[in-house]
Amino acid sequence: MSKTTDRVRQILSWYSSDNPGVQTNLARLMMHGALAGTGKFVILPVDQGFEHGPARSFQPNPAGYDPDYHYQLAIDAGCNAYAAPLGFLEAGAVKFAGQIPTILKLNNSDTMAKMEPISAVTGSVKDALRLGCTAIGFTIYPGSSARNTMYSEIRELILEAKEHGIPTVMWAYPRGAGLAKEGEQAADITAYAAQVACQLGAHIVKVKPPKDVVYQDEAKKVFEKYNIPTKTLADRVRHVVQSCFAGKRIVIFSGGEAKDDASVMDEVKQIAAGGGFGSIMGRNAFQRPRDAALKLLGDVMNVYKNA
Amino acid sequence: MSKTTDRVRQILSWYSSDNPGVQTNLARLMMHGALAGTGKFVILPVDQGFEHGPARSFQPNPAGYDPDYHYQLAIDAGCNAYAAPLGFLEAGAVKFAGQIPTILKLNNSDTMAKMEPISAVTGSVKDALRLGCTAIGFTIYPGSSARNTMYSEIRELILEAKEHGIPTVMWAYPRGAGLAKEGEQAADITAYAAQVACQLGAHIVKVKPPKDVVYQDEAKKVFEKYNIPTKTLADRVRHVVQSCFAGKRIVIFSGGEAKDDASVMDEVKQIAAGGGFGSIMGRNAFQRPRDAALKLLGDVMNVYKNA
Amino acid sequence: MSKTTDRVRQILSWYSSDNPGVQTNLARLMMHGALAGTGKFVILPVDQGFEHGPARSFQPNPAGYDPDYHYQLAIDAGCNAYAAPLGFLEAGAVKFAGQIPTILKLNNSDTMAKMEPISAVTGSVKDALRLGCTAIGFTIYPGSSARNTMYSEIRELILEAKEHGIPTVMWAYPRGAGLAKEGEQAADITAYAAQVACQLGAHIVKVKPPKDVVYQDEAKKVFEKYNIPTKTLADRVRHVVQSCFAGKRIVIFSGGEAKDDASVMDEVKQIAAGGGFGSIMGRNAFQRPRDAALKLLGDVMNVYKNA
Amino acid sequence: MSKTTDRVRQILSWYSSDNPGVQTNLARLMMHGALAGTGKFVILPVDQGFEHGPARSFQPNPAGYDPDYHYQLAIDAGCNAYAAPLGFLEAGAVKFAGQIPTILKLNNSDTMAKMEPISAVTGSVKDALRLGCTAIGFTIYPGSSARNTMYSEIRELILEAKEHGIPTVMWAYPRGAGLAKEGEQAADITAYAAQVACQLGAHIVKVKPPKDVVYQDEAKKVFEKYNIPTKTLADRVRHVVQSCFAGKRIVIFSGGEAKDDASVMDEVKQIAAGGGFGSIMGRNAFQRPRDAALKLLGDVMNVYKNA
Amino acid sequence: MSKTTDRVRQILSWYSSDNPGVQTNLARLMMHGALAGTGKFVILPVDQGFEHGPARSFQPNPAGYDPDYHYQLAIDAGCNAYAAPLGFLEAGAVKFAGQIPTILKLNNSDTMAKMEPISAVTGSVKDALRLGCTAIGFTIYPGSSARNTMYSEIRELILEAKEHGIPTVMWAYPRGAGLAKEGEQAADITAYAAQVACQLGAHIVKVKPPKDVVYQDEAKKVFEKYNIPTKTLADRVRHVVQSCFAGKRIVIFSGGEAKDDASVMDEVKQIAAGGGFGSIMGRNAFQRPRDAALKLLGDVMNVYKNA
Repeated sequence: MSKTTDRVRQILSWYSSDNPGVQTNLARLMMHGALAGTGKFVILPVDQGFEHGPARSFQPNPAGYDPDYHYQLAIDAGCNAYAAPLGFLEAGAVKFAGQIPTILKLNNSDTMAKMEPISAVTGSVKDALRLGCTAIGFTIYPGSSARNTMYSEIRELILEAKEHGIPTVMWAYPRGAGLAKEGEQAADITAYAAQVACQLGAHIVKVKPPKDVVYQDEAKKVFEKYNIPTKTLADRVRHVVQSCFAGKRIVIFSGGEAKDDASVMDEVKQIAAGGGFGSIMGRNAFQRPRDAALKLLGDVMNVYKNA
Repeated sequence: MSKTTDRVRQILSWYSSDNPGVQTNLARLMMHGALAGTGKFVILPVDQGFEHGPARSFQPNPAGYDPDYHYQLAIDAGCNAYAAPLGFLEAGAVKFAGQIPTILKLNNSDTMAKMEPISAVTGSVKDALRLGCTAIGFTIYPGSSARNTMYSEIRELILEAKEHGIPTVMWAYPRGAGLAKEGEQAADITAYAAQVACQLGAHIVKVKPPKDVVYQDEAKKVFEKYNIPTKTLADRVRHVVQSCFAGKRIVIFSGGEAKDDASVMDEVKQIAAGGGFGSIMGRNAFQRPRDAALKLLGDVMNVYKNA
Repeated sequence: MSKTTDRVRQILSWYSSDNPGVQTNLARLMMHGALAGTGKFVILPVDQGFEHGPARSFQPNPAGYDPDYHYQLAIDAGCNAYAAPLGFLEAGAVKFAGQIPTILKLNNSDTMAKMEPISAVTGSVKDALRLGCTAIGFTIYPGSSARNTMYSEIRELILEAKEHGIPTVMWAYPRGAGLAKEGEQAADITAYAAQVACQLGAHIVKVKPPKDVVYQDEAKKVFEKYNIPTKTLADRVRHVVQSCFAGKRIVIFSGGEAKDDASVMDEVKQIAAGGGFGSIMGRNAFQRPRDAALKLLGDVMNVYKNA
Repeated sequence: MSKTTDRVRQILSWYSSDNPGVQTNLARLMMHGALAGTGKFVILPVDQGFEHGPARSFQPNPAGYDPDYHYQLAIDAGCNAYAAPLGFLEAGAVKFAGQIPTILKLNNSDTMAKMEPISAVTGSVKDALRLGCTAIGFTIYPGSSARNTMYSEIRELILEAKEHGIPTVMWAYPRGAGLAKEGEQAADITAYAAQVACQLGAHIVKVKPPKDVVYQDEAKKVFEKYNIPTKTLADRVRHVVQSCFAGKRIVIFSGGEAKDDASVMDEVKQIAAGGGFGSIMGRNAFQRPRDAALKLLGDVMNVYKNA
Repeated sequence: MSKTTDRVRQILSWYSSDNPGVQTNLARLMMHGALAGTGKFVILPVDQGFEHGPARSFQPNPAGYDPDYHYQLAIDAGCNAYAAPLGFLEAGAVKFAGQIPTILKLNNSDTMAKMEPISAVTGSVKDALRLGCTAIGFTIYPGSSARNTMYSEIRELILEAKEHGIPTVMWAYPRGAGLAKEGEQAADITAYAAQVACQLGAHIVKVKPPKDVVYQDEAKKVFEKYNIPTKTLADRVRHVVQSCFAGKRIVIFSGGEAKDDASVMDEVKQIAAGGGFGSIMGRNAFQRPRDAALKLLGDVMNVYKNA
C-alpha cells in the first residue's frame, strides 16, 4: 500500500455508508498492481475450470491446469486482483500470501446439470477470511426464475461480508427462462442487470460487453424516444456506467471467449472510451502462452492508464 | 506413525492452506498400511449395504453381513483406510479402535426411492469425531438438478470438518437429469466432476475409471483440436489427474462392479500408469472369499508400490 | 433391575460404541417384564390413534380410548416396554412412573393429508427425558421421495439422544413413490429397509413380517443365484436378521392388522424360528378384550422364552 | 498404526465408557514409538519454558530454545508422545504433522506472579483439534485454595474433549496453602492427588515420584495400622498405582529436576518395579546433549519394555 | 503489495500452522512502508492517551491531540503499521483507509484506578474487522496476580482472530505483586515474559529493552553458570530473541519514555545488533515536532534496513 490518490479517495467517497474495513479492502484493490491509484481495474478471473470444465478451459495452455500458474500470472501482470473458486484459491493461498488481493467466488455453476440457471453456493465469508481474501464474488442470473433465491442468498452474504470488512464483486449475467438468447447481452438488459446488482448492494459490478440490441419492448420505446445511442460499444458502455448510479458504482467488463489480440484491444478501447472502470479478463489471459498473456494484459492496462 | 517420507511431505505441501490437524489426518492416511509412505492409496469402502441393499452386497460372500468382517479385512490387507456409513463404523469402532484409519461417509443413498440423484445426509462431523475417524466422505452427483443442495451441504461440512482437523474425501459421480447414461463415465465428464470436487475443496477425490467417450460437444471440440488422447484407460486417468489441479490433489479410482482378478489387475495397472494415486475397491474385495480378497488387494498394492 | 444375564451382556457388547447411558437404557428394556434377561422383546405400541384415527383404533375395545388402559395392559402383560406418541405417554407418565419402560415416538403421520409419505416430528429428546422414557422411536419410509428429510432428521435426533443416554427404536416401513404396493413388504425390500435403519444408527429396528416376494430386479438375480430361501416366514425373517449386521442389531417384527389368535401365534412362531428378537404388537393386543389380550401376549412371550 | 496387542486392548477395556474416538486416541498413544504395544509410556514434556522461564530451561542445552528440537527429539527417541503448551506445538505442528502424537497442555503457570497456585487456561479443545493433537493436558494443584476453580475448569474441558474424541492427561501436583513443603511429594498425598485426578475423569495421570513421608495424620494412622510399605520408591509407586483405581487408570511419573544418568535409571527401575506405567521426562531429556538424551531415553524405554 | 522477498517468506514459514488469512496479514505488515521486504519493523503505537492521560501524552506536541495526526505521521514516516485503541483508530479509519496497516489494541488500562495490573478489554475481533485492521494487539502483565484472567482472555481472542485471518501482537510487560520494580525490566524477566507471550500464541511480541539486571534467584544461577552475557543491550536483546523460540517468533522493542535523538539511536543500534526485529516507538515519535519525528523515524529505519 502507498498513499491513496485523489481519484481513489473520490471513488471511496461513493461508498461512505460502508465501514472502514470494507473501504480498506476496496482501497487495497485499487492500490495494487500496474493500475494502482488510477481507480481502474484489470482482474484475472479463473472460474472456468468449474464453469466450463477443465479441458475446455486449460488445454489451450496446459500450464493453467496448475493453480499456481494463475496466481503467478496475475501477480506478474500487475492485475489488481485474482478471482477464483475456493479450490483454486486454497491451493496457492499460503504460497502467494500477501502478493495479490484475491476474490473468493462464493457461488459457481457447472454445465453438467440441466436446470434453470442458478449457481450453487460453494464458499462462505468465513472461507474468504481464513484465506485472506480482499473481496467475495457472487454471480446472479437476472432472467432466471430462480432469481429470488439468488438475490436473497447474496443479500445475506453481502451483509455478513460487510460486517467483516469485506466488499462484494457481483457477476451480473442475464440468463434464464425470462430471456431469449439475443436478450442476454442486449444493451438495455445489460444496463438493467447492472442496475439490479447495484441496488442489491454490490460494490463492484461485472457485466458482459453489451451488444447493439435493445430487447425489451418498453425499453425500446424509451431508447428511441430519447435517442439513447447504442451503435458503438463505447455508447453502450456509457449507458451501463450511467445505469450504475451515474457512475458512482464501479462497473467492469468481462473479456468473454478467447479472441485475437486486436479484437481484445478494440473492445478494451471502447470500454475505456465509454467510461468503464476496467476489464475482468480470464480466457483471453490464461489461454494464451504466458508471454503473450503478459504482453496483452500490459497493453490492456496501458489503455486504462491513459484513459 | 513413523517418520513421514519425502513424498508424503511433498503431497502435504499441496495442502498448506489447511491447519495442522487436517494435515496430520492426511498424513495418518498416507502413513498406514502396506502403502505407508508411498503417497499411494488402497481404501476399502463398504457402503453397498446402504447403496445397493444387503443381499446384492453381501450374499456373494456372506461373511460380509457382519460389520466386523470388513474392519478385519481392511486391517489384514494393509489398506490405508476403511470407509463406511455410520452404522457399520459404529458397530466395530471400539473393537478395532486405533487399528486402521476410518472414513465416515456422511451421506448415502438407497435404491428404494425414485428421485433426482441426491444422497441423504446420514452423519455429522461430530459423529466422525466421537467415532475416532480420520476423514469424512461425501458423495456429489454432478449432473443432478439437486446439485446446488449437495454442493452447499458439502461446503458447510468441509468447513466444519476443517475446523476440527478432519479432511474430506469426495465421491464424484456424475449422474442425473443433465446427463445421458453414456455421459456418466465419459472421459471429459469424469475429469470435469473431479475438477468440481477439487474446486469445492475436497482433499481426496474419488471417481470411476473413465471410459473412451467424450460426451459434451464443447469438450469434444477441445479434445479433438488438442489431441487429448483417450484411447487407453491410462490416457484417460492421466487427463483426470491433470484436471485435479495438475496432480496437486489426490485422486483415486473406484473398482466398480465385481470382475475377475485379471480384469481388476489390468485396470489397476492402467490407473497406476496414468498417475492415479490409488484405488478404492469395495465389491472386488469383500465379495471375494477372504483369502482371495487378501491376495488380490496385495497384488493391487504391489502395483502401486512399484509405480 | 436385577443382574443382567450373559445373553443381555452379549447383546450390549454389540453396542460398545455407545455410552453407558445408552447401554443402561438398552439393558432396562431387556431386563423388564416376562422376557427379562432373555434378550427377547414383546413391546406394546399404541400410535394407531394418531396414525389411523380413534374409532378405527379403539372402538373394537372402547377401553382403549383411555390412555391409562394401555399402560396397565403393557404392565400386566409383562411387556418389555410401551411405545406411544407424546400425548398418550404424557397422560399416564406420572401415574405409572417407574412401572414400565416407555418409548416416545418422535414422529407420527395421520391419514388426513395426501402427501408423499413422511411423518411429522411431534416430539423431542427433551420430551423423552422429561417423561422418563427409556428410548425414542422414529419412523422412516424408505421409498419415499421425502427420504432425505427423514434420514437427516433421525440422524440428528439419534445423535442428540445418544448424548443424553437414550437409544433409538426405528420403525422402517418401505413406502412411497419409488415402490409399488407389492414391494412394500417384499423380502428383499424389508431386509434392505432394515439394513438402512441399522446404517443410520438405530439400536432396535422394527419391520413388518416380510412376504414371499422379491421386488427389485437386481435383488432377484442375487436371491436366485445364491438360492436365498424365502418360502417360509422363518426363512425371510432369517434373511432380515442377517441383514441387521449379521444379527448384531436387534430387529423386531410388527404384528400388523388384527387377526385371530391362531394366525398371530403362527406368525410369532415363524419369527422366533427365524431368529427374530421379538414382536411389537399393537392392534392384536389392545383391540382384543383385556383378558384375551393378556392371554395372547402371554402365549407370545412363551414362544420367545422357549426359542 | 499396527494391530493393537492384547495388553493394549486390556487397558482400553478399562475405558469402555468412553466413545471410540477417545479410545482411538488412547490407542494411538499406546501404539506409537519404541514402547508401542506394551502399554508403557515415555512422554517428552516441554512446558518448562513457560513454567520456569527460558534460560533455566534451555540454556543447559541451547538447542532447546528452538521448538523444532523437541519435536525431533521425541520422534527420534521413540517417545509415545510430545507434550507442550500451545506456542511450542504450533511452531512445529505442520512440519512434523503425523510423526508423533502430541498433547496440548491447556493450562500453564509462570513463576513471575505471586499467588495461590492455579494455572491459567492457555488453550482450548478447539486448539487441540486444529493442531492435530491426540490428547489434552491439564495441571491441577490439590492443596491450593483455588482448587475448586481448577477442578471445575478441567471437568468442563474433559467433557468437551470427550465429545470430540480427545482423552485427557492430568498433571496432579499437590501444592498450595493447604500443604507444607514436605507434604507435596508425600506418599499419602501423591496417592491422594492421583485418586482425585482419576475421580475427576482423567484418562492418564501424572504425578511426581512420591517420597518416604506420610503427611496427613489420619493417613498416618492407616499406613501404620495396615503396614502399607513406603520405604522404597517401588513400594510407594505400588500404592499410587493401586490408588489409581486398582491399576485401572494409567499413571505415569515425572522425572523431576535434572540429575545424572545413574540416578534417573535407579528411579525408573523402581517405578517399573512398582508397576508404574511409565515416565514423563522433560528436563532429564532436553537439558542433556542430544546424543546423551537419546541414549538415556532409550535405556529408560528398555527398562519399561522388560518390566 | 508487491512480491514478497525471500526473507519475508522465511519468516512466514515459521507460522505455517496459521491459515492463509493470518499469513496474508503478517505479510501485509512486512510488505508496507520503508522497511517493506526486510522483515524488520518500525511501528507507531499511540495508546498513551488512554494509558497515561492526554496532557502527559500530547501536550509536548499538541498536534497529537488530533487522531488524524498520528495516522498521517505513521504513513509519512513509512512505518509498517499504526497501533491504537479503538477510539483513535475509528476516528481516522475511513479517511486513511488503505494507506497503512492498523493494529487495534484490544485491551487498555488507565492510571486512575488503583488495582493489581490488568487491562480492560476495550475492543473485539469484530471491531478489528469492521475497522479494516491488519492485526489485534493485547497487553499481558506477567507478575500480576490477575494473570490468569489476562492469559485466558487473550487465548480466546487469538483463536477468534485466527479464524478470521487476523494475527496478534502481544505487549508483554512484567508488572504486579509478584515483581519488585527492579524486576520489571530485568534481562531474565523480559526474556521470560517474551517466552510466555510466544507460548500463548502471539505472532509478534513487544517487550521493553531489558536492563542489566537478573532478577530471579533461580535464573541468576543459570545466567552465571552458563555465562549468559547481559552487559550490553545487544547482549540482552540477543537473549530475548533466542527466548522467542530461537528467533522464530518476531519480537520488537518499545522505545520507552521520551529521550534525545542520540539516546534513541544508541538504543536502536543495540537492538538491531542483538537481532531484534524492530522498534515500536510512540512517545519518541509523536511527542517530537513532526519534522523531527520524521527525521528520527527515518534514521531508525535506516539502522534496521542496514542491519
